[in-house]
Amino acid sequence: MGLDASFGIRIGRLAAGPRNLITDVPGVAVGHHTLADGPVQTGVTAILPHPGNCFEEKLPAAVQVFNGFGKSLGLVQVEELGQLETPIVLTNTLSSGTAWTALCRYMLARNPAIGRETGTVNPVVFECNDGHLNDIRGLHVQEADVLAALDAAAEHFAEGAVGAGRGMRCHGLKGGIGSSSRVMEIGESRYTLGALVQTNHGSLADLTVAGKHIGPQAEALLKGGWTADYTPQEDRGSVIVVLATDLPLGAGQLKRVARRAIAGLSRTGSNIGHGSGEIALCFTTAQRIKHFDDKPTRQMTELNEDHINLAFRAAAEATEEAVLSALLHAEAVTGRDGHRAEALRDVLAELERESTR
Amino acid sequence: MGLDASFGIRIGRLAAGPRNLITDVPGVAVGHHTLADGPVQTGVTAILPHPGNCFEEKLPAAVQVFNGFGKSLGLVQVEELGQLETPIVLTNTLSSGTAWTALCRYMLARNPAIGRETGTVNPVVFECNDGHLNDIRGLHVQEADVLAALDAAAEHFAEGAVGAGRGMRCHGLKGGIGSSSRVMEIGESRYTLGALVQTNHGSLADLTVAGKHIGPQAEALLKGGWTADYTPQEDRGSVIVVLATDLPLGAGQLKRVARRAIAGLSRTGSNIGHGSGEIALCFTTAQRIKHFDDKPTRQMTELNEDHINLAFRAAAEATEEAVLSALLHAEAVTGRDGHRAEALRDVLAELERESTR
Amino acid sequence: MGLDASFGIRIGRLAAGPRNLITDVPGVAVGHHTLADGPVQTGVTAILPHPGNCFEEKLPAAVQVFNGFGKSLGLVQVEELGQLETPIVLTNTLSSGTAWTALCRYMLARNPAIGRETGTVNPVVFECNDGHLNDIRGLHVQEADVLAALDAAAEHFAEGAVGAGRGMRCHGLKGGIGSSSRVMEIGESRYTLGALVQTNHGSLADLTVAGKHIGPQAEALLKGGWTADYTPQEDRGSVIVVLATDLPLGAGQLKRVARRAIAGLSRTGSNIGHGSGEIALCFTTAQRIKHFDDKPTRQMTELNEDHINLAFRAAAEATEEAVLSALLHAEAVTGRDGHRAEALRDVLAELERESTR
Amino acid sequence: MGLDASFGIRIGRLAAGPRNLITDVPGVAVGHHTLADGPVQTGVTAILPHPGNCFEEKLPAAVQVFNGFGKSLGLVQVEELGQLETPIVLTNTLSSGTAWTALCRYMLARNPAIGRETGTVNPVVFECNDGHLNDIRGLHVQEADVLAALDAAAEHFAEGAVGAGRGMRCHGLKGGIGSSSRVMEIGESRYTLGALVQTNHGSLADLTVAGKHIGPQAEALLKGGWTADYTPQEDRGSVIVVLATDLPLGAGQLKRVARRAIAGLSRTGSNIGHGSGEIALCFTTAQRIKHFDDKPTRQMTELNEDHINLAFRAAAEATEEAVLSALLHAEAVTGRDGHRAEALRDVLAELERESTR
Repeated sequence: MGLDASFGIRIGRLAAGPRNLITDVPGVAVGHHTLADGPVQTGVTAILPHPGNCFEEKLPAAVQVFNGFGKSLGLVQVEELGQLETPIVLTNTLSSGTAWTALCRYMLARNPAIGRETGTVNPVVFECNDGHLNDIRGLHVQEADVLAALDAAAEHFAEGAVGAGRGMRCHGLKGGIGSSSRVMEIGESRYTLGALVQTNHGSLADLTVAGKHIGPQAEALLKGGWTADYTPQEDRGSVIVVLATDLPLGAGQLKRVARRAIAGLSRTGSNIGHGSGEIALCFTTAQRIKHFDDKPTRQMTELNEDHINLAFRAAAEATEEAVLSALLHAEAVTGRDGHRAEALRDVLAELERESTR
Repeated sequence: MGLDASFGIRIGRLAAGPRNLITDVPGVAVGHHTLADGPVQTGVTAILPHPGNCFEEKLPAAVQVFNGFGKSLGLVQVEELGQLETPIVLTNTLSSGTAWTALCRYMLARNPAIGRETGTVNPVVFECNDGHLNDIRGLHVQEADVLAALDAAAEHFAEGAVGAGRGMRCHGLKGGIGSSSRVMEIGESRYTLGALVQTNHGSLADLTVAGKHIGPQAEALLKGGWTADYTPQEDRGSVIVVLATDLPLGAGQLKRVARRAIAGLSRTGSNIGHGSGEIALCFTTAQRIKHFDDKPTRQMTELNEDHINLAFRAAAEATEEAVLSALLHAEAVTGRDGHRAEALRDVLAELERESTR
Repeated sequence: MGLDASFGIRIGRLAAGPRNLITDVPGVAVGHHTLADGPVQTGVTAILPHPGNCFEEKLPAAVQVFNGFGKSLGLVQVEELGQLETPIVLTNTLSSGTAWTALCRYMLARNPAIGRETGTVNPVVFECNDGHLNDIRGLHVQEADVLAALDAAAEHFAEGAVGAGRGMRCHGLKGGIGSSSRVMEIGESRYTLGALVQTNHGSLADLTVAGKHIGPQAEALLKGGWTADYTPQEDRGSVIVVLATDLPLGAGQLKRVARRAIAGLSRTGSNIGHGSGEIALCFTTAQRIKHFDDKPTRQMTELNEDHINLAFRAAAEATEEAVLSALLHAEAVTGRDGHRAEALRDVLAELERESTR
Repeated sequence: MGLDASFGIRIGRLAAGPRNLITDVPGVAVGHHTLADGPVQTGVTAILPHPGNCFEEKLPAAVQVFNGFGKSLGLVQVEELGQLETPIVLTNTLSSGTAWTALCRYMLARNPAIGRETGTVNPVVFECNDGHLNDIRGLHVQEADVLAALDAAAEHFAEGAVGAGRGMRCHGLKGGIGSSSRVMEIGESRYTLGALVQTNHGSLADLTVAGKHIGPQAEALLKGGWTADYTPQEDRGSVIVVLATDLPLGAGQLKRVARRAIAGLSRTGSNIGHGSGEIALCFTTAQRIKHFDDKPTRQMTELNEDHINLAFRAAAEATEEAVLSALLHAEAVTGRDGHRAEALRDVLAELERESTR
């Protein structure tokens, strides 16, 4: 359910898709596996780009790094070839290697030719550091947890403090997984662009919700003892943006669309902090590239750039709304050593109460 | 004079320098030469990075391209070497070649060794397309005009519809040259970062002033016949951001600071349009690199990254404020074929009048 | 005429096209205008990518910078859009601004919509520093000279000390313009890739001709007084590589092909010197992108990457051979202040004579 | 022992260091752990950049991707920050995740603050695909094997079919780990640059040894039945180049040095094949950057670029020689399914015998 209906918040000018989720792009599925047990507050989120075999039928894709203080794995090959050949897995930073290996085994099981008749495979893993709430040094995510997230992938999925978002903090509050979508009408056709974000960035003082700079008030509340535990968050900690679309775009065009995610991030108050891995990946489901192909050439459809501003706008709006959606869906979480992150919705309710006193 | 004092607008958390101009960075000077005669509405703006010979004493510098639909000249070498060795000249797109040649001659006159005992020189020229108001096909800027702007460089300079900003449109209104600065306190020291922008980008419907999304109201006014001529501007047309600082930063660090300009641009409503050349250059005056140097190594001071978020914030805030300053200082201009761009201050005044009716 | 027939030199495994020139790619034309008068030893070379209007029908293109100590103009937009919309002009470094303006006027004359009904235009100008032989500070190239080179474009053109190559030095000898081509058979189809180089790089001691490291012998000869004037050339001074092909490639693929030029440059002895602008541009004539296009999408053909190694090999081989062709076609030239660059063919003949004594 | 003494091969103009290994750079250590058992032919190689704690004392570093068809992990952060904070681990492609996790645990054990009082850590893992000789689908490398390689690090280490090089093929023959070094005299000082390569690239027909194009002869031999098993290798399969130096270089300068590795690779016959991950990383031991540092700025020493061509030459020469050293030290290996890779030294001996018959 969109922010509009649930929270009275509306971002930008374009209409959202029916679910207002990345899965409004046909064929995209998302699954979570959450670990929430005392000091273990972490998890895995998996995005399946299409229902088929991603290795045999790759998708055009591109990556844009806004700030590279991050450990995301698999970006070199996406940058070189403009192709995505696995699902995308998100988790906590120090579990990235485990996630990579699990995703690798998942691909090997489905593709006997890998490492034999054909080359290897390029797993794509994104991460943020959930070490404030989660015992990240424990490397608690196991390969089975990754497979569970992949197996759970569906069109409907939860937002907030779930999956890879379980231990995340965002703008000093409880962050997590958020999603949104936008519909674009070009010529006679209707296309969708969806965003899924893993939010672990920003400082509370900078938080801006739908243009309202509520950060200072919220900070005063939390510093004033309303919460059991408040540790200020610097503008660091990373945010990952995954954009999916069914617009026919080439890899160079997808990179340009991915780059516009930064406009959305900026508008909720991020200055792209030094310690933040801020990275966007954009793929299109409009066409697939066969791994095994006897033909010497292939036909690709690209968007006439006269219309690409619409996709740029959709990327900016969906990203901004997905960040807010993560914040607004997340419940408060208490993790390791009693560290706690409050929920934005509780903060907003308290500010509302205060204002009416 | 800052926006705060003149217009009651305040951006961000950091204090501005005494002039709230890029020239708050000691040694930086700016000069304009304006051509305003009927269909000729254009000009040149020059930024002198330091009072000495820039070729003999280069400055660490870096460039960040947000959208490369632009013709800026000289960026390849800045990217490779991380050094700036000439003043920076801004003008209209089709006059870039003339500006390059004029700046080249300016450097030759001051450096007899260029092209003889030593190598050549790398002029840096930025541009935006002022073809809506200006007869850009006429290539009206002459080499003498470029030299006049260089000669006019001083610590005090005008903002708005002057110099290279004369023919610019921004968010459907009259754009131009804007500037701002921010003060940073790190340890015992005080540093300054200043921005100068050439604004020719954005759509009116997206215009956001200090968080207020006034674009739709402003658009209704202009479409409603309040102006003699209104042509909607798509989110294209380019914006150039030049950042100067006296913080000691290496070239890699300067690139990271330059990248944060995008946060400022995003917050006034830009989605980095397809047709827009959106480019930032950042240089530091904290240290100079000698062209003729017998020593095999040189000592450089870099900022400890624990403090770099302050510079990122300064870049974002100064850029956002410089864009608004360009808009707010610019007067309405009528140019070729009766094309007219209204002044934001007139629009704001009219909206104010309407609201009190 | 190829190196094989004229000089007994054969590079690589692929066959050359009928002319062994970049103009073996159908539709490509090259023109020179040479200034050779005492201390003025310079000129202009123009490459027309196709016989039509390049602005109305753009070509997919990409740029690869190996070392950016160069002043080439127009690369930012090619990098962003992956499109070439003007002829390519080569000249000396300090005349780049003049060449840019001349090419701009050339485009304006053919496209009345530029700067009026549509946006501006992105001239592409490459350069090397011919200051050793040429009075480069004199800025002797005029706009008319640039237009003359454009007008002279044809399928047959000279190599060596002509056009933009007039004043160039390469590996301490007379450099200039060289060209070569390679034929590729993929499936049932035959494609061509051609290279044109402007060679002004390398040190004599490193010179390697078709695998033979003849540099040290050649250096001994020149240092031994065989020439009237010998000034050693450091591994700097720039080399430009333009690659054309009729293979259907996307912009990302073209960038990968352009990158392989470095293998060819390395094999003649370059270590990509610090002061060298080493830059490659690759375009394809296989498909055109319309500037004015009502359709929301376009169909593009791309090569299946299973076959792209053939294009990589062609790029490496054609580049190596084009460098050698420039050296072998160039006559000895004496320019400003009695500076002289000897011809490789004369050096080889003298070494031959010595060895038979 | 250098190639000169052992094989009569000499590359380039600069002198090698005493061991002609990357460990000629003081403080650098290398360790191997080899798995060689029937179909399991793989392993791990670890490079320790300095004897201290790399996380607490980081080194300036840079990465250059020549062709990104590779899965190397950890490059995003090196690119952003210009710093290396862990040892470097090399292994086979599909074991990269395991190597990442093992290196992560190794760093956690030595740095209790990671993930608690400070941020996370960025393990750097390089890989090539050894699937022809090795049962790569078996993921046989365990975390303990990675730790064993790290523990084995020393100044003396083996080259050839050892460690991560165990299963590699290069130019159709047995590849593996190779190393070389070059000494540079600048002013009064003597500096060293060393290369270590993991070679798994190239086609036999292109193989060039010290300028001699012996590939075709060698291919005729192998195709002629001299070997028990010959499968041609396309120009793919990856090569990793790690460069270490004690020259004081900034991160931007290190990237430029890393880029020159490609000249060395080209000269042994590589065209940078499509399927090849060709990546170079260069770090300097001349200065360390403290993770915990109270001072707001730091002093860094950079090389005056007037001398950087020497480092470029050293990088090109050491890389070329390291590739040849890998080939010449490697013994023949028979792995999974009877696949066999012959040793270059055996091939050279047989060609020698043939020529004297």
